[in-house]
Amino acid sequence: MKPMYFTPGPSQLYHSYQTHLQAALDQNLGSINHRSSKFREIYKYTDTQLRQLLNIPSSHSIFFASSATEIWERILLNVVEQKSFHFINGAFSKRFYNFSSQLQKNPSCTVVADGLGFDIATIDIPSDVELICTTQNETATGVYFPSEDLGLLKNRYPNQLLCCDLVSIAPYSEIDYNAVDLSFFSVQKAFGMPPGLGVLIANKTCIEKSNFLKAKGLNIGAHNTFEAFQSNYMRFETPSTPNVIAIYILGKIAADFNSIGIHHIRKEMQVKAANLYAFANTSDYFKPFVTETKHQSETVIVLKSKVNVAEVISYVKQYGYIIGSGYGIHAENQLRIANFPATTKLDMDHLINVLSNFKPS
Amino acid sequence: MKPMYFTPGPSQLYHSYQTHLQAALDQNLGSINHRSSKFREIYKYTDTQLRQLLNIPSSHSIFFASSATEIWERILLNVVEQKSFHFINGAFSKRFYNFSSQLQKNPSCTVVADGLGFDIATIDIPSDVELICTTQNETATGVYFPSEDLGLLKNRYPNQLLCCDLVSIAPYSEIDYNAVDLSFFSVQKAFGMPPGLGVLIANKTCIEKSNFLKAKGLNIGAHNTFEAFQSNYMRFETPSTPNVIAIYILGKIAADFNSIGIHHIRKEMQVKAANLYAFANTSDYFKPFVTETKHQSETVIVLKSKVNVAEVISYVKQYGYIIGSGYGIHAENQLRIANFPATTKLDMDHLINVLSNFKPS
Repeated sequence: MKPMYFTPGPSQLYHSYQTHLQAALDQNLGSINHRSSKFREIYKYTDTQLRQLLNIPSSHSIFFASSATEIWERILLNVVEQKSFHFINGAFSKRFYNFSSQLQKNPSCTVVADGLGFDIATIDIPSDVELICTTQNETATGVYFPSEDLGLLKNRYPNQLLCCDLVSIAPYSEIDYNAVDLSFFSVQKAFGMPPGLGVLIANKTCIEKSNFLKAKGLNIGAHNTFEAFQSNYMRFETPSTPNVIAIYILGKIAADFNSIGIHHIRKEMQVKAANLYAFANTSDYFKPFVTETKHQSETVIVLKSKVNVAEVISYVKQYGYIIGSGYGIHAENQLRIANFPATTKLDMDHLINVLSNFKPS
Repeated sequence: MKPMYFTPGPSQLYHSYQTHLQAALDQNLGSINHRSSKFREIYKYTDTQLRQLLNIPSSHSIFFASSATEIWERILLNVVEQKSFHFINGAFSKRFYNFSSQLQKNPSCTVVADGLGFDIATIDIPSDVELICTTQNETATGVYFPSEDLGLLKNRYPNQLLCCDLVSIAPYSEIDYNAVDLSFFSVQKAFGMPPGLGVLIANKTCIEKSNFLKAKGLNIGAHNTFEAFQSNYMRFETPSTPNVIAIYILGKIAADFNSIGIHHIRKEMQVKAANLYAFANTSDYFKPFVTETKHQSETVIVLKSKVNVAEVISYVKQYGYIIGSGYGIHAENQLRIANFPATTKLDMDHLINVLSNFKPS
C-alpha cells in the first residue's frame, strides 16, 4: 500500500498529478523551447486558470520562480530600498525577516510567541517602512492571519506595500488582491505537486517600485528581477529556462480545482479541519497548539502531544499515514497535520480514527 | 511518431528518463521531506555518481540550484567584491557579463566576434580581477573553449578564481578541477532531462571567499548563499526545498552514463560530431559557422545556411527531427544542432541523411 502524506509540504500529490505529468511527457514538454509558442500557450493557460481560482485582478502579474524562498529574496531586493517590517509568529516569518537583515534592508518587526496570532489594532508600523510582510499561514506554528486583517492593515497603511506569504494556504484562503500588493506560494503544499516551482503575484506598483530603485542605482539583483519578470510576462515568457512541466501541471491542477469549484474545495477542507480540531479538543493525548479559534490554521493543524511524538508518528505510519512532527524546537512535543485538497474527508476521518485509537506504550 | 529533439536545450530526453521518473513516483519522492534521511541518501547518491562521471575531487562541493542563470548570480554575489573578468564570445557569456554589471561588480572583458575563439596567450587580465569567467561551450555560437586553455589560464593567474560555464557541454568535456574553482551546468542539455535544476561545483577557496565577503559586511544575497549551500551540504541537504525528483533522476542518469562508461559516451559523441561537420564541409547549402577546428563545439554544432532557415527546419520536421535556429541576430541564417548523449549515432546519421537530401524550394 502506498502511504498517504499528511505532511505540511512536500505533501500528498493531488490525484490527477500523474495523469497531467504523463500528458506533459506525451506532448514533449520536457524538450520544448521556452521561447516557443507552445510554451507561451502553457504560461497563458496557467495564468488564466490561476486568475480564476484565486480571483486575481488584471492589476497583478503572475511570475514563476523556483521556490518561495527564492521569492522572499526577489521581493526584498526589488521593492525595498531602506526598510521592511515583518509580522513574526514562527520560523518561516522569522526567516523572511532574517533574509531582509542579510540583504541589509534594516527590518523591524512585531513578534508574538509561537502559537499566538496578532492583534492588528495594537500594532504601529513606522511610517518610513516600505514593505509590510505577513504570513497568512505559519507552517511552523499553524497560526492563521485572517484575510480581514490584511484589509485592515492596508486601510491603515495605504502607502506601504503589503506582502502576504500564502505558501501553505493558497488556494484555500480568499484574498482581496486590492489590499495585497505582493503574494506568493509554492506548489508542494495545497496544490499537491512535487517541489520545484514558486509563484509570485505582484501588482504594477511593485514593478514600478523596482524600476524606480534600479533607476536610482540600487542593486535589485540580476536574475529574476521584477523588470525581467514583467517584460517577459508581457509575452508569456520567463527570464530564463523555467520548470516548464511544473508550470503546465500547475495550470491543469488549477483547472481541476476550478472545475470542482473552489467553494466546494474550501467547504470540504473546512469540514476536515473542523473534524480534526474537534477530535483534538476532546483527546486525552493531543490538544490544538493554537488556542484562539480565529488564529487556528485550517490547512496546517498543529497539535501539542502529551506523549512521545516519534511513537505517534510511527504508530499512524503502520496504517499508511505519514504525519509531520513539530517544527524546530517543537519537534518532540508537537505534530503537524496538513489539510490539503489532495486528501479527502474520508482520508481525514480515517486518520482521526487511527489517532483516536492510539494508546501510548 | 514522437519527434526527436536535436535542439540545443531543452533537448531530447535521455531514453531512461521516464523509467527513473516512474521509479521516483513509485517511491513517493514528490512527497518526501527534504530534511529526511531518504532525501539525504538521494543527494549523496547523486553526488557520488556525478563525482565519478565528471572526476570531481574532494576539494569541490556539489550544490543544487534551479538553473544556470540563477547560478551566475550566486557566483558573482558570493566570490566577487570588486571585479570580475569575462571571456565573451556569444550571447550567453555576454549575459554573464551583464549580470556582473547589474550586480555592480565592475566587470571587464575580452570580446571576439561571434564564431571565433580566444587566443589565450595574447590576453592580459588585470591583477585586481577576483574572478575569471569562461564559457566552455557557447550555446549561442557553437564555439568551444579548450580544456587545456583553462589549465593555461590558471597557470598564468593562480591567485584569481577561475570559473567555467559547462552548461551545454557537461559531462562531455574533461575538466581538470584543480584548475577550475567554480563550474556549473543545467540538466536540460547533455543530461537529457527537462529544465528545473542547475548544478554548481565549487571548491573550498570559493566558500572561504564568500565567508570573507560576508564577514566584511558585503551583501552576498540571502537565498542559496555559498555559506548556506556548504553548511547544508555537510549533511547532504539543501538550504530550501529543492526539486527532489530532478536531483534523484540526475543521479540515476549519471549512473547510467557511468555504467556505459563516459569514455564510450564521449567516443560516440565525437563520431556524431565528426560526421555532422564532415557533411557540412561538403554541403552546398550549409557550412560550419566556426571555422577553426580547435574551437568547433562538438556538442552544439552551428551551421551557416545559404537557404531560408525556417524552410530547412520545417523540412527536417517532416521526418520527425526538431533542430534549432541560430541564436538572436543569427536566427535567420544559422542552424544549431545539439549532439547530446540522448541521440544515437544512428539518429545523427538519419538527420544528416535528411539534411543532405534537402533542396530549397
